[in-house]
Amino acid sequence: MQTRTEHDTMGDVEVPSDAMWGAQTQRSVQNFKIGQEHMPRAMIRAMGLVKKAAAITNAELKQIPEELASYIVGAADEVIANQWDSQFPLVVWQTGSGTQSNMNCNEVIANIANQKLGKALGAQNPVHPNDHVNRAQSTNDSFPTAIHVAASLQINELLIPAVTQLRDTFAQKAEQFKDIVKIGRTHLQDATPLTLGQEFSAYVTQLDNGLKRLQQALQWLYELPLGGTAVGTGLNAHPDYAVKAAAQLANLTGLAFVTAPNKFEALAGRDAIVFTSGALKTLAASLNKIANDIRWLASGPRCGLGELYIPENEPGSSIMPGKVNPTQCEAMTMVVAQVMGNDTTINFAGAAGNFELNVYMPVLAYNLTQSIQLLGDACNSFNEHCAVGIEPNLEKIDHFLHNSLMLVTALNPVIGYENAAKVAKTAYKEGKTLKQVAVELELVTAEQFDQVVQPAKMVHPNTK
Amino acid sequence: MQTRTEHDTMGDVEVPSDAMWGAQTQRSVQNFKIGQEHMPRAMIRAMGLVKKAAAITNAELKQIPEELASYIVGAADEVIANQWDSQFPLVVWQTGSGTQSNMNCNEVIANIANQKLGKALGAQNPVHPNDHVNRAQSTNDSFPTAIHVAASLQINELLIPAVTQLRDTFAQKAEQFKDIVKIGRTHLQDATPLTLGQEFSAYVTQLDNGLKRLQQALQWLYELPLGGTAVGTGLNAHPDYAVKAAAQLANLTGLAFVTAPNKFEALAGRDAIVFTSGALKTLAASLNKIANDIRWLASGPRCGLGELYIPENEPGSSIMPGKVNPTQCEAMTMVVAQVMGNDTTINFAGAAGNFELNVYMPVLAYNLTQSIQLLGDACNSFNEHCAVGIEPNLEKIDHFLHNSLMLVTALNPVIGYENAAKVAKTAYKEGKTLKQVAVELELVTAEQFDQVVQPAKMVHPNTK
Amino acid sequence: MQTRTEHDTMGDVEVPSDAMWGAQTQRSVQNFKIGQEHMPRAMIRAMGLVKKAAAITNAELKQIPEELASYIVGAADEVIANQWDSQFPLVVWQTGSGTQSNMNCNEVIANIANQKLGKALGAQNPVHPNDHVNRAQSTNDSFPTAIHVAASLQINELLIPAVTQLRDTFAQKAEQFKDIVKIGRTHLQDATPLTLGQEFSAYVTQLDNGLKRLQQALQWLYELPLGGTAVGTGLNAHPDYAVKAAAQLANLTGLAFVTAPNKFEALAGRDAIVFTSGALKTLAASLNKIANDIRWLASGPRCGLGELYIPENEPGSSIMPGKVNPTQCEAMTMVVAQVMGNDTTINFAGAAGNFELNVYMPVLAYNLTQSIQLLGDACNSFNEHCAVGIEPNLEKIDHFLHNSLMLVTALNPVIGYENAAKVAKTAYKEGKTLKQVAVELELVTAEQFDQVVQPAKMVHPNTK
Amino acid sequence: MQTRTEHDTMGDVEVPSDAMWGAQTQRSVQNFKIGQEHMPRAMIRAMGLVKKAAAITNAELKQIPEELASYIVGAADEVIANQWDSQFPLVVWQTGSGTQSNMNCNEVIANIANQKLGKALGAQNPVHPNDHVNRAQSTNDSFPTAIHVAASLQINELLIPAVTQLRDTFAQKAEQFKDIVKIGRTHLQDATPLTLGQEFSAYVTQLDNGLKRLQQALQWLYELPLGGTAVGTGLNAHPDYAVKAAAQLANLTGLAFVTAPNKFEALAGRDAIVFTSGALKTLAASLNKIANDIRWLASGPRCGLGELYIPENEPGSSIMPGKVNPTQCEAMTMVVAQVMGNDTTINFAGAAGNFELNVYMPVLAYNLTQSIQLLGDACNSFNEHCAVGIEPNLEKIDHFLHNSLMLVTALNPVIGYENAAKVAKTAYKEGKTLKQVAVELELVTAEQFDQVVQPAKMVHPNTK
Repeated sequence: MQTRTEHDTMGDVEVPSDAMWGAQTQRSVQNFKIGQEHMPRAMIRAMGLVKKAAAITNAELKQIPEELASYIVGAADEVIANQWDSQFPLVVWQTGSGTQSNMNCNEVIANIANQKLGKALGAQNPVHPNDHVNRAQSTNDSFPTAIHVAASLQINELLIPAVTQLRDTFAQKAEQFKDIVKIGRTHLQDATPLTLGQEFSAYVTQLDNGLKRLQQALQWLYELPLGGTAVGTGLNAHPDYAVKAAAQLANLTGLAFVTAPNKFEALAGRDAIVFTSGALKTLAASLNKIANDIRWLASGPRCGLGELYIPENEPGSSIMPGKVNPTQCEAMTMVVAQVMGNDTTINFAGAAGNFELNVYMPVLAYNLTQSIQLLGDACNSFNEHCAVGIEPNLEKIDHFLHNSLMLVTALNPVIGYENAAKVAKTAYKEGKTLKQVAVELELVTAEQFDQVVQPAKMVHPNTK
Repeated sequence: MQTRTEHDTMGDVEVPSDAMWGAQTQRSVQNFKIGQEHMPRAMIRAMGLVKKAAAITNAELKQIPEELASYIVGAADEVIANQWDSQFPLVVWQTGSGTQSNMNCNEVIANIANQKLGKALGAQNPVHPNDHVNRAQSTNDSFPTAIHVAASLQINELLIPAVTQLRDTFAQKAEQFKDIVKIGRTHLQDATPLTLGQEFSAYVTQLDNGLKRLQQALQWLYELPLGGTAVGTGLNAHPDYAVKAAAQLANLTGLAFVTAPNKFEALAGRDAIVFTSGALKTLAASLNKIANDIRWLASGPRCGLGELYIPENEPGSSIMPGKVNPTQCEAMTMVVAQVMGNDTTINFAGAAGNFELNVYMPVLAYNLTQSIQLLGDACNSFNEHCAVGIEPNLEKIDHFLHNSLMLVTALNPVIGYENAAKVAKTAYKEGKTLKQVAVELELVTAEQFDQVVQPAKMVHPNTK
Repeated sequence: MQTRTEHDTMGDVEVPSDAMWGAQTQRSVQNFKIGQEHMPRAMIRAMGLVKKAAAITNAELKQIPEELASYIVGAADEVIANQWDSQFPLVVWQTGSGTQSNMNCNEVIANIANQKLGKALGAQNPVHPNDHVNRAQSTNDSFPTAIHVAASLQINELLIPAVTQLRDTFAQKAEQFKDIVKIGRTHLQDATPLTLGQEFSAYVTQLDNGLKRLQQALQWLYELPLGGTAVGTGLNAHPDYAVKAAAQLANLTGLAFVTAPNKFEALAGRDAIVFTSGALKTLAASLNKIANDIRWLASGPRCGLGELYIPENEPGSSIMPGKVNPTQCEAMTMVVAQVMGNDTTINFAGAAGNFELNVYMPVLAYNLTQSIQLLGDACNSFNEHCAVGIEPNLEKIDHFLHNSLMLVTALNPVIGYENAAKVAKTAYKEGKTLKQVAVELELVTAEQFDQVVQPAKMVHPNTK
Repeated sequence: MQTRTEHDTMGDVEVPSDAMWGAQTQRSVQNFKIGQEHMPRAMIRAMGLVKKAAAITNAELKQIPEELASYIVGAADEVIANQWDSQFPLVVWQTGSGTQSNMNCNEVIANIANQKLGKALGAQNPVHPNDHVNRAQSTNDSFPTAIHVAASLQINELLIPAVTQLRDTFAQKAEQFKDIVKIGRTHLQDATPLTLGQEFSAYVTQLDNGLKRLQQALQWLYELPLGGTAVGTGLNAHPDYAVKAAAQLANLTGLAFVTAPNKFEALAGRDAIVFTSGALKTLAASLNKIANDIRWLASGPRCGLGELYIPENEPGSSIMPGKVNPTQCEAMTMVVAQVMGNDTTINFAGAAGNFELNVYMPVLAYNLTQSIQLLGDACNSFNEHCAVGIEPNLEKIDHFLHNSLMLVTALNPVIGYENAAKVAKTAYKEGKTLKQVAVELELVTAEQFDQVVQPAKMVHPNTK
């Protein structure tokens, strides 16, 4: 491999000739051969946004020359567009502040800019990775800012639309199924009836609530540490920098970013991430319930509950028609398991700050962005390949409903509680329908039975 | 043991003669000999409140006679006052709907009421545990309502005041310590200075934010399932019951309870609990950071950081003065570990609903109320026995600050970066102070050094 | 409240007159008003055993007079028998080393002994809580020893017998059900058949394996920290003490306790507990699978899978016969949720040691012993009230088996794959049985069908 | 993109012309656009091994022609060598059985083999992906077999050597540091002394134990589900297949693989994975303690504990010499956080099997192999870039040791407990050394003090 020689305060480092990164990135490549988990794309984009906002702000505040700023902005735009992802070779398992990835970003942007200015890679001139790209920043404030920006963008651009779309599908199903009366089930046991639309309305509400909880979490992510620099004091930053840089990030993203009111908390605590993960795991719990319900209701084709048909996306069995494995439900529940574990990781890491810094930032970034990405993608996949195609198996639903012994309660006013219980017990013991038994016992006629036992009247409050 | 014979639909049961509970409770006592964890007091109180609100509402809606309602209310008031806790013998590990504890409450209230009316225990007359006390309710809606009520009361009455008090103590310390400049630490390594007040201000903000997140969680706990009855349809409840009963609970507690907009979600999902636990674990993460900081800063007395004194509450060592074990910090961090585990339990249980019901309600109630109780108590204990008594060890703080090599940065403008680095490196290598070295190298005079190297100027944004 | 005045190195303390505990316990009562979770009974017993073993060993090694030792042993025996539990008022949330509970035990034993010798409570003479009862011990070695002893006893006395009994019940069921051919289910979808006995044999193997894993964990619990004293060096202990005291504990309990080979690890790491919790959560995972299977297979009575009958232990519904809520399954799965959360707590706490000590010992003791107790009790309850009474619903099993479309594979050799698929597809589409369709299509006669399609031949390896 | 048309039982699918995969893989690519997490390399290799072992065994048992088997083996060898990883495009978030990845492997191997035989891609002839490559297998047994094989290989080839090497480094350090007496610390507070070698010996023992626990876990991973086919009955497999195929895998890998004694457990339970994760998280807990100790002991350079020097691998600060951020410790503790979360995911997924199958296999495979990989890599990185270079700061160690007030205990026999306490208290209050005070108070001479107060005598059991 061809290399060029760069140096930093520790001495010379051989960097691949065509690498856009520099010495500090290279040291990390060599010192941290751990796993395959690279810094997430969402983080690269967000670091680019932070660098862009910082450059604009620094130029405004006369901290760096206008022209250099414009080159930094141009380079950052390419990073933001994920054009240079291949130049971010570092893994998550590095320094806990993310310094090496921050420097990776500084080095890449400086090289892009300098290259455009006709300089060789590694020139560090006229755009210097530290003095200009990282100006008025420390990793300690810019890296957590990038986490907040990355997660906020993912939630707004991917997760909220995905959940909303799935919610809308369920809302449409709830409307479509609103008159389909079916057996209820509690403790997995037959219970009083409800409509299939009512059952699906619970999913709509769960997702609606999930969306509101994401908004509650976003409020915390929108508070940015930028401007705290190394320990929260803002040393080496202009007094106006924090407010302006946050406003710039709001401007660039269209999101309601503001500067965090207390920079010491903003550097040392990572509570916003811990709380956001709390909202994500709550959404995951909802999705687990929903995906489980649907795969159980679609179980069969002959030996399960079989009240729903779900789309057949891949061959279930070459010989057995109707074996439709609920693969989208399975992908979803596996995502849920992952999000639950990511939440544990985030709790462990988020609680472990010391003094002026929390040094679990890359692992926090990795787990948080993974949870958001997976939930968003899974909702989209589940919606497209499963939810939109759900249809009721009316025959099965009807069969269960009318076979259920729970309906006997409707006979109470007519034949009395004692007789009603007798009907149910006999039906259960002899494996007959309530109607059969009630008629056989000459308690009612078939016509009377049909008139009285109407499940559709049992699906709303009814005591006057 | 003397017993009386009661019976339910399965036959006779022997109940201790003086027990206020009845047949269904007794069956649970016999069938669930698992562990020692009884239904929490907070839940007993909350079940009493639900029964009271239901009775008042049912009377209003002419569903039960006014007089019976008044006896139920009277009995419920005693349960609410935790006067009958000994009559709630059931453990958490029972039916997953909490039916047995709900029936326990119905039976106890009926017996209290009937006893006042001169009836024998077990009479079920004139007040019947099902027909009157449990009127228009199913365990499936009243038990989760009780969880919401219990947790809401605990958060409002215990946790919020406790966190607020601790926050206020830290705010006072932050003010008191606002001019004490000290070394910052990132990566556990010496960093640029900040004030001790700034360090404590981070704790204030963490707790402030924690309080706001509790409010975000409460919004979800305030939505009550009551009125959904067995499967969410409200079967056997008056159409106005749900709204009125929730309003009654708001009236009785002073909290902003409302009826849940969708009862199917309210019965089948337990997301409000999962999310609340998310807010609690975030608070726990904050408290972990704070308690760890304080015990590290108080470590020593001779061989640690020793920047803080914490109150000595019990003998640390009979021979060694100054060995003050940070026991309140240890209790707090153990509580944090518990809350983190409870969160995992709640995630596991909260995600596991099926169809119209989640049958992990007692374990959810147990973990949620334990987390709130422990965090509240621990904050109070930590505040009283530790936080209020924290004092700075000014000598140690000053020693570290002035020994730190980080201060050399202040010399840059005067002697140049090269010379500054030389001073720092020499000081580090020879174990000397920066001042010693700078003067020895004749780069500055002692007076100049003192004039230029002023840590107090490094604790705020400073670039113009 | 009447009190007596005791004092320790910090001064006077008022202790309730009749309390068997002393000053240090009393300070903890006052300083740690957190929660209701008292030091578990299993721990009190184990602390008593440690004190007894230490006294015998110290006497043998001439470190304390024979006579005093005999009084300590006598007093410890009463503590071991849990006769003095009311004198252990401390909660889990105290000093992280458990010092206060260790002193509680020392004080109670000293007072019992001195009382028998005619001395007043608090006399500390002739038996002194520190000099004699705690002789050659530090909390730092004796408390984790007590955790190991407590957990080892619980596992051997409660958990292993309980799991074994449940395993035996399943083994008997597996034998009883060995010829009942039933439909298999994968992805919740109909699959090829197996016997009900085979299905239950999986449970037997899971529990067998669980028992072996408990033995693997016990091997680590059997290594005792005792003898490390304050930091692992064994300062103030006789060189032979560690080995002899462990042997004494082995002698007293009949368990294979030995002294830990490295006392520094034994004090500072709590890995044995973390690993044991790993074995417990694995057992929990097995039990979750089993309890879930059983409640699903017993779902119904009409609208579920209904292949199993489980015992009816309490009224499911006053009107609907056959509504048997799977309450033992629910208690079991709630216990599983708790054990999973306890495991997280243990991971968090177990990973957090510093230097010579881990100061999360009470919370580790609490969670570990709770997990063991709950799993043991739940297995016993589940066995007695559910497993032993499980019976097959042969009609339902048969119905599903013969309705299943999977059986068509058996026709391949006779009518060819194409025709077999046609039979299955037609049956699925028209809602008929395979036999109906095959006969209707004149591919086989009814007799031929019955001869060829024999599910019982599909339940073992068959390709030659 | 050029495509070729393939078809399966659901119809035609367009597959990229040069793809080695086929229709079923392609459907998964299209249906599961979730995240970026591809099936781990370790799994691809293991699936290759399973296919190879199956082919050899099937040929031996005359189930497939010898020649086809040899082509399958040749193709599988290339997959095992990870030469075709680019042809495994599927993500983890797919069907829960891993069917699609299993088919991916079958399709790739068939295409490699057929290509060598001069056939076009997609020919499925003469080597058919199902009939030959997947012969006598179902995903339900072959995929979990691959997980066991993958994890077993990773543990043996990566993790055990990595942990052993780190253990050996610590063992060497323990020997090297065996005479360096230093202050002990409990509760973060000064305690009695020990040697630095003793402190490091705890790490050696923790890792030794961790290695033994990995062996305990491997015992379970060595039991292979292969031969259970679809539901555990072994339908469509030769009766000798299971035993022989496991033996073949043992032969191919050199590991002690055997066929699982109960195939129903082997398909439906994933307890071996849950338990292995339990061993991994225990190792993680050990590594967390170790990495934390080392970064705290190396904290400073001036304002921390500073007893250890750790290697400086990258610039800590451009201006401040000696700021050596403990980046390897940070990478390690982030890995620990990840492993703890992965354990939660594995618990959630491992407990969720139903009936004859657990459908969380890809997420289990992903988390298990990630945990092993990260722990192995992190141990190697930590060893090479940190542990081997650890050196004591003798001056600092000595300073703390001799400043400590704990040493006063050594004076007890000479000047009495009362006077010793007075010396310590005065020293603490006046900020002096024990020696200064003891001499000032004329209790001992300086010579006497030095003779009596010898920390080196306090580092082993000493009471006779």
